[in-house]
Amino acid sequence: MHMPYQFAHRMEAAPESFLDTLFAVSSDPSIISFAGGLPSAALIDVKGIAEAAAGVMAEDGKAALQYATCDGHLPLREWIADRYRRRLGLPARAEEIRIVNGSQQCLDLVAKIFCNPSDAVGMERPGYLGAVEAFSLYEPAIYGVPLAPEGGPEMEAFSRLLTEKSPVFFYGIPNFQNPSGTAYPEAVRKEAGTLCREAKVPFYEDDAFGELAFDGRARPPVKRWAGEFGIMSGSFSKTIAPGMRCGWLWAPEEIITTFDVAKQAADLHSNHLSQMILHRYLTTHDYDAHLTVVRSAYAKNCRLMSDLLDERLPACTHTRPGGGMFMTAALPEGVSSMDLFRAGLSQGVAVMPGRPFFADGGGDDCFRLNFSTAGEEEIKEGMARLARALASLVR
Amino acid sequence: MHMPYQFAHRMEAAPESFLDTLFAVSSDPSIISFAGGLPSAALIDVKGIAEAAAGVMAEDGKAALQYATCDGHLPLREWIADRYRRRLGLPARAEEIRIVNGSQQCLDLVAKIFCNPSDAVGMERPGYLGAVEAFSLYEPAIYGVPLAPEGGPEMEAFSRLLTEKSPVFFYGIPNFQNPSGTAYPEAVRKEAGTLCREAKVPFYEDDAFGELAFDGRARPPVKRWAGEFGIMSGSFSKTIAPGMRCGWLWAPEEIITTFDVAKQAADLHSNHLSQMILHRYLTTHDYDAHLTVVRSAYAKNCRLMSDLLDERLPACTHTRPGGGMFMTAALPEGVSSMDLFRAGLSQGVAVMPGRPFFADGGGDDCFRLNFSTAGEEEIKEGMARLARALASLVR
Repeated sequence: MHMPYQFAHRMEAAPESFLDTLFAVSSDPSIISFAGGLPSAALIDVKGIAEAAAGVMAEDGKAALQYATCDGHLPLREWIADRYRRRLGLPARAEEIRIVNGSQQCLDLVAKIFCNPSDAVGMERPGYLGAVEAFSLYEPAIYGVPLAPEGGPEMEAFSRLLTEKSPVFFYGIPNFQNPSGTAYPEAVRKEAGTLCREAKVPFYEDDAFGELAFDGRARPPVKRWAGEFGIMSGSFSKTIAPGMRCGWLWAPEEIITTFDVAKQAADLHSNHLSQMILHRYLTTHDYDAHLTVVRSAYAKNCRLMSDLLDERLPACTHTRPGGGMFMTAALPEGVSSMDLFRAGLSQGVAVMPGRPFFADGGGDDCFRLNFSTAGEEEIKEGMARLARALASLVR
Repeated sequence: MHMPYQFAHRMEAAPESFLDTLFAVSSDPSIISFAGGLPSAALIDVKGIAEAAAGVMAEDGKAALQYATCDGHLPLREWIADRYRRRLGLPARAEEIRIVNGSQQCLDLVAKIFCNPSDAVGMERPGYLGAVEAFSLYEPAIYGVPLAPEGGPEMEAFSRLLTEKSPVFFYGIPNFQNPSGTAYPEAVRKEAGTLCREAKVPFYEDDAFGELAFDGRARPPVKRWAGEFGIMSGSFSKTIAPGMRCGWLWAPEEIITTFDVAKQAADLHSNHLSQMILHRYLTTHDYDAHLTVVRSAYAKNCRLMSDLLDERLPACTHTRPGGGMFMTAALPEGVSSMDLFRAGLSQGVAVMPGRPFFADGGGDDCFRLNFSTAGEEEIKEGMARLARALASLVR
């Protein structure tokens, strides 16, 4: 094909993207999708957010619709800092917090400020594929540290990575990780944070799912031990609404100052209207009561899916998440996850193949299941279809 | 100072940012600011946008608040394509249009997909400082082509740049350029577009101000002649509301496909709620009538400022824009724009020094004035203060 344009070398480093393909699959009504990562539409508080939007427009419309500063809406940053203080007992301050267009933007900008081509970056294996996509465009050498079955990176490999490769940062999701749903045990958090602080390697802790612990309990973040080498990102996408693209970064001020240069260049500032709507929603509605509803719905879905895997697909051992939106299941010997993906589609069910989660190869022997999007009946029907798809492959 | 973090080399390439400093200046109520680039708050149609927001929430709230595709809200992209067809007579299609977080994001992502370190990038001299900030992080060699007094790059220098430096793209603002307010004459558009198409150099045409022509007339874009080497960006920030951070890119599909990889990695997709509000606003309110009001207000402000410059600061020759939000004035020999900036602040008025608009140095002999933010009385008082500030320097 005629290709008249010359693109930058970095674009060759981009992995083939699965996310948009998945979104397309999940818009086909005949397919029950466990492949994507959408929060339950039924649990989005449209009425509450509409009230907040109307209030912002009525009382503060001109400010909400005008240009704003790069750092983000100060009252929202103060709310976030306050929640870190109360919930995690950590001394967060609004000056250390920046609002971004969903926490995916942190992945892009943190890599942008830290990562030269060929620099080492560490991450979990399997790890979040959106992170692989974002990091890859800065052409790092990505090293995956295998996850232990009980959750968290295998500490011997983690420690060896820090000393042998001196990564510019390690990226991980300690709470209910994407794709496995596992969480770091507290001892692992302590050791990972301590090792990073000693090695002066930032631990970049993506906490998109911390508020979705089924038991509602706050786990201590790795940052508690990583100290000034702890960077955290958070998001309202899984708890309130992804369409407003509102996440944040919490990092020491010296990192924030450099981050601001990248954020300013990237898009001047985040959507001001959405920031004000979210802040108003958080301060006029009962966020904790809303979270209780979401947690209990996801816990129920997770248990149902887990039971159906045990019952209908007993050959697929799987993780047993304590929160979040995902679990990972292993495939019987000789069955590839791409085959299961295709067989699933022909049965009317979509799962997410494991490969894109393995930055340095592998992963064809497992797949990810999402339990937040579908309701109870869909999960029952979808798991029946999945059992038929697997049967068609092992027969 | 203790600096424990190692940042990527590209961060050293970042110019010192002025934009946020300026925003801070423009929030000080004792200072009349001609330094920033805010649209008039009085002209933002808060009531109309609030109606559109309420309508979206009532009829389509769940979709607006859920994850969406990377490409952007299809009805909005169709509206934009349709406007290109009707207004400019060009065959735009929704498939070639992508929604971004304000057109600043195009600057980041277009540079990201085209620009290796040390690659040549061409732009106007003076040119938009936000573009210099965005491009710099990809470490190009930026070459400025001087603007001719009648508007548009000097074509001999432009042509020489294409043949001698083979830039990965040329970035320009043909309509009411930032900072000068000048527009490319039609012959320059034709020649620039033709040269770019022949040399296979994309002409990246930032059209943030085209809808703000005081006479309402649509000028033919460079893309008309650049063809498949024409890339355009547009924005609702200057015409409707910047706080919703909604702009777009229009480019040939082969470029769009690569752009999507970068956009997906950067933040998954743009704010869905704002896209739906804007589309509803555009289709339920009279956008052209709104634009007529904005154009006539800015034309009046521009004339007033121009007359006061002639009358009170006759030593400062200046451009006479036919649209947009900015003009540039020259300083008398021996007066630097940084001195004027400081003298202005002590008199209670802010102007924008010329230097940041000159990617490759110079510019201390001119300054930029914004005429969209302040009202008539503020312009009168601010220009009196500016005359006193200049007098304090030449005395």
